[in-house]
Amino acid sequence: SSSSAHCAPYSSRTHTCGSLTAGDAGARVILTGWLLPERKGKLVSFYPLKDSYGTTQLIVNHSEGATDLSALAKIPVESTVLIEGTVLLRPPNARRPGPTGDIDIQVDKFILLNPAGNLPFVPSNPHNLANDDLRARYRYLDLRRTALSDNLKKRSKVAQIARNVLHDQGFLEVETPVLLRSSPEGAREFLVPTRISKATTTDGETPDKPTFYALQQSPQQPKQLLICSGGVDRYFQVAKCFRDEDGRKDRQPEFTQIDMEMAFVSWGTSEASASADSDIWRIGGAEVRDVVETLIRTIWEKVEGVALPKRFQVMTYNEAMTRFGSDKPDTRFGLEIANITHLLPEEQRSVFENNGEVLECITVRKASEPEFLGASRACDINPADERITITKKNLSTWLCYTTHAALRGTSADALLHINEHLKLMPGDDIWLASRPQRPKGGSTALGGVRLRLFEKAQSRNEFTVTKDPHFLWITEFPLFTQADHDKDFLAKGRWSSSHHPFTAPMWQDIDTMYNGQIEAVRGQHYDLVLNGVEIGGGSVRVHDAAMQDYIFTRVLQLNEEEKSPFHHLLHALQCGAPPHGGLALGFDRIMAMLCNTQSIRDVIAFPKTSTGADLLFKSPAPISNEVLHQYGIKPVSTT
Amino acid sequence: SSSSAHCAPYSSRTHTCGSLTAGDAGARVILTGWLLPERKGKLVSFYPLKDSYGTTQLIVNHSEGATDLSALAKIPVESTVLIEGTVLLRPPNARRPGPTGDIDIQVDKFILLNPAGNLPFVPSNPHNLANDDLRARYRYLDLRRTALSDNLKKRSKVAQIARNVLHDQGFLEVETPVLLRSSPEGAREFLVPTRISKATTTDGETPDKPTFYALQQSPQQPKQLLICSGGVDRYFQVAKCFRDEDGRKDRQPEFTQIDMEMAFVSWGTSEASASADSDIWRIGGAEVRDVVETLIRTIWEKVEGVALPKRFQVMTYNEAMTRFGSDKPDTRFGLEIANITHLLPEEQRSVFENNGEVLECITVRKASEPEFLGASRACDINPADERITITKKNLSTWLCYTTHAALRGTSADALLHINEHLKLMPGDDIWLASRPQRPKGGSTALGGVRLRLFEKAQSRNEFTVTKDPHFLWITEFPLFTQADHDKDFLAKGRWSSSHHPFTAPMWQDIDTMYNGQIEAVRGQHYDLVLNGVEIGGGSVRVHDAAMQDYIFTRVLQLNEEEKSPFHHLLHALQCGAPPHGGLALGFDRIMAMLCNTQSIRDVIAFPKTSTGADLLFKSPAPISNEVLHQYGIKPVSTT
Repeated sequence: SSSSAHCAPYSSRTHTCGSLTAGDAGARVILTGWLLPERKGKLVSFYPLKDSYGTTQLIVNHSEGATDLSALAKIPVESTVLIEGTVLLRPPNARRPGPTGDIDIQVDKFILLNPAGNLPFVPSNPHNLANDDLRARYRYLDLRRTALSDNLKKRSKVAQIARNVLHDQGFLEVETPVLLRSSPEGAREFLVPTRISKATTTDGETPDKPTFYALQQSPQQPKQLLICSGGVDRYFQVAKCFRDEDGRKDRQPEFTQIDMEMAFVSWGTSEASASADSDIWRIGGAEVRDVVETLIRTIWEKVEGVALPKRFQVMTYNEAMTRFGSDKPDTRFGLEIANITHLLPEEQRSVFENNGEVLECITVRKASEPEFLGASRACDINPADERITITKKNLSTWLCYTTHAALRGTSADALLHINEHLKLMPGDDIWLASRPQRPKGGSTALGGVRLRLFEKAQSRNEFTVTKDPHFLWITEFPLFTQADHDKDFLAKGRWSSSHHPFTAPMWQDIDTMYNGQIEAVRGQHYDLVLNGVEIGGGSVRVHDAAMQDYIFTRVLQLNEEEKSPFHHLLHALQCGAPPHGGLALGFDRIMAMLCNTQSIRDVIAFPKTSTGADLLFKSPAPISNEVLHQYGIKPVSTT
Repeated sequence: SSSSAHCAPYSSRTHTCGSLTAGDAGARVILTGWLLPERKGKLVSFYPLKDSYGTTQLIVNHSEGATDLSALAKIPVESTVLIEGTVLLRPPNARRPGPTGDIDIQVDKFILLNPAGNLPFVPSNPHNLANDDLRARYRYLDLRRTALSDNLKKRSKVAQIARNVLHDQGFLEVETPVLLRSSPEGAREFLVPTRISKATTTDGETPDKPTFYALQQSPQQPKQLLICSGGVDRYFQVAKCFRDEDGRKDRQPEFTQIDMEMAFVSWGTSEASASADSDIWRIGGAEVRDVVETLIRTIWEKVEGVALPKRFQVMTYNEAMTRFGSDKPDTRFGLEIANITHLLPEEQRSVFENNGEVLECITVRKASEPEFLGASRACDINPADERITITKKNLSTWLCYTTHAALRGTSADALLHINEHLKLMPGDDIWLASRPQRPKGGSTALGGVRLRLFEKAQSRNEFTVTKDPHFLWITEFPLFTQADHDKDFLAKGRWSSSHHPFTAPMWQDIDTMYNGQIEAVRGQHYDLVLNGVEIGGGSVRVHDAAMQDYIFTRVLQLNEEEKSPFHHLLHALQCGAPPHGGLALGFDRIMAMLCNTQSIRDVIAFPKTSTGADLLFKSPAPISNEVLHQYGIKPVSTT
């Protein structure tokens, strides 16, 4: 049957399947689309005809005298057809809301453009989804599902809105190289071997060493060089980036970011005190903040019809860690963390203080947070945290029986003082954990508890989260950290940059840095958080070559080989680089949130699995040794 | 001096260096930018201050009582500074045309933001360009040149215009994978080895075979699958593509195309005859033509202020080869080719006809084409062509002494008949060559002569080419060709596709194809040519799975392994694929033409050299064997 495709001239469609309305009644039309299952009536049959714009109902007359269209019934479902006919206004009781709901097409002629056969599943049936692997393998069929194709439409629309906003704000879109140089460690990079040109060898012999590009992980260096050049004042790019991160859930080896950089960004305000007052943008890069808020507000307004606040909330890293136990707090619910160290009697308190720790709790109140109480009781307890249910009986003793040995001797008086302060009542739950005084990394034990309570309460249908998106800037991160586990093989016990080595310190902390108090230096970094998910981040960059060199050499203690990929950046800073800063937004993640899906795979046309496999194109795949030889490489296993 | 960068709060600029006009006279302003060389006067000094928007002239007063700004004179050229001052209207005789030409800034305060030092060359001096290699190595300085940064601005603008036109026409921009599957031959591909995950091995041992992605050469298959899905009716993408073509002049290993594909494109008109009438779009894909002409017209109108014709000229491949000896003819000048075989006496004619050849000439007339006559006399003669200058003396014999032995006996009468037909006069030049009757490939000997005459006449300043861009569609290419030299290692003597194997035959030639007259089959392919340069190409695709399989198996004689990368496409065609077609425009090439530069490197922010080297980022580079081992590969030279 596949030979019966129509390979000859045919008329152009006059309309799409989503465009006809009552106003078109009586018109002769030509439509093209995919034929969906017949609903057969006594006198007429109904067929939905679907294209990417919508669905229009066709009517075929079985009565005598009508054109014989019986062949239409024999066309396999999901075939493409062209139909000609007349637009009929439906009787009032048959009208349906939505586009094309007022009309049918009385068909009098059709052409089978291409018959469908051999379908592994029927995409027009959304209630009986095939399994993930099958749909990934036949992605071109799965994309026929309206749910998925709507995501692609929304993605295209959002990208265009973003580009228009940025162009309106004077940004230039500049393409930076995908084929870049690899860093000495090759961490998280994809390498690209280059074919060994015959021109570079004498008699077909292979040169000594094959050479490689690396795929860009982000356009960080190119964009800074672009701004340092002075040729571009405001840069952006919807940039494809590549990261070889094995086994991270819902990551893709290639992903897209809306990347930007601006010359002459501010370095903060001189008046701002060093106090920890919330909601103040003390660092530089306020211009970046303005642009990003405008961008996000415009997207939410045009795509979701939601008016976001003129300014997004700002919170320092320190406050976020203290109140929410997370550097990307979800502020759509309470359950804030309280530090109770200062409420402890001197003896107990000094144990924590001497350890450089604080004792914190989350209180789940029966009276005011009943929606989380069931979750609290049902939640798993991790080794780093513990839960105590307050009863009349343990009101004056509950702290004595925790896993913290130091708390065993807490007196009843002291505990009643704490109870009073926390307004604890029998029936409340209290979650307890200690943490280092200076918060480290991205979350604390109680930050984890908070999220577990939130998820559990939702899964128990006891808490419904607001639909209002909560945007939040986190600022004043520590500029340097002792390496966390997954970077340790690079850091070898040295300080490493919390984000990247180009982030500038807050001007208030520059002396602190030069004085060697590395742990106390705050960076001019900002993360944008939406509903507890980091959707973007950026910083004001170091523009002082001497400072950048100091950071590389003295703080991070990079050796010459490790510094070598940064030589051109150091030199560019010397050539009169302007102060500059920027940000990158995770476009796939933002789209997943706008499309209400958990997986970024649903907003990518041809995604890979979590292990990086492409089940449709069957990649990655082995390559013959003959081909590899052209690149001067061979499999390790070859002997 | 590099330690004296300003790393502290500073005021925001109030204007850019391109924005102040006479209307701002008297205003207090803050500007930031790059300080260019001082021009010192008796009472005042002048400094140009430049940013990416323009240049504003600063005035510093030396008179007593004025603020002491002598430190400004000590700042190195190309440093970034912030200045505060007052806008002064220039005296009428000092006003200059162009932006900021009416004003100066009387400076009263400045901050050195970042001193420049260690400059390998001074980019603000456009009259003394450093050599290519130096500028490539310090691209971030070279981009400070207005000529280059203007190109980036224009490129950003054109991309945005293109996106707006396509969005307005209902296109969705969809990102397709950069990491794709390699084809069995690996020709012209970049490979990407994948890290061998510990998860896939048992005890740290390397699995048998390393696996690879390949970087997309073009999104051809993904875009066809997208349209076959029915989820997207009109697709476009400003797509980064990768081709590993060694040593091709002015090619980049990564380049950008404006790629598009449309569902339900036409398959031509049924009335159109098979005649060779010019200027008729007989093939399908008229919708693609409409979109592309609108796109190009809008770009030229908005960027160049040029109104292009409503319709671009159409020419068949056969006509282009016959009249211009090229499948991408430059129609900005004459020198058309004439076939004179039919003018030869029977005896001579039959020699050419029996060889399947025709005899052609280009006449350079003293009377009507004097601008090419000097070029003709000065032009090199190649083995495949020859030049005869017509004199009174050789009027009746000139054809007898050509390199074509068959022409030696041509009688004086016959020659005078030819002279009369060609209107030959003493003093004219005639260029002569033979070619196969059925044109092959992209150009003929006389097509080459034509271009050499054109270039020579221009270099002699005897011919000035029109500034009007000449756009031209070439259609009705042969669908299959015997492999040309650079594809031969793949074709192994078989037929190969002139463009790619997905191009549909003209419906008039489908029977011809199934009957095995492969050489006579014309494809529904169209190239867009601008001033003799191919700037885009596309086709109506095969949507009939049986026809596609026939082309793979019977015409191209692919074996199973060669067919395997196309299995998913064949299956997608079986699932009710719509008729579809598309096109890709070479964005870098179009930008080079819009920027009046010969090299696409001038329209790319960070280009590579013709050998694929990136002198700025120093790539490609060797990788240590330890890192390579993670990918299961090692250098061939390792023993």
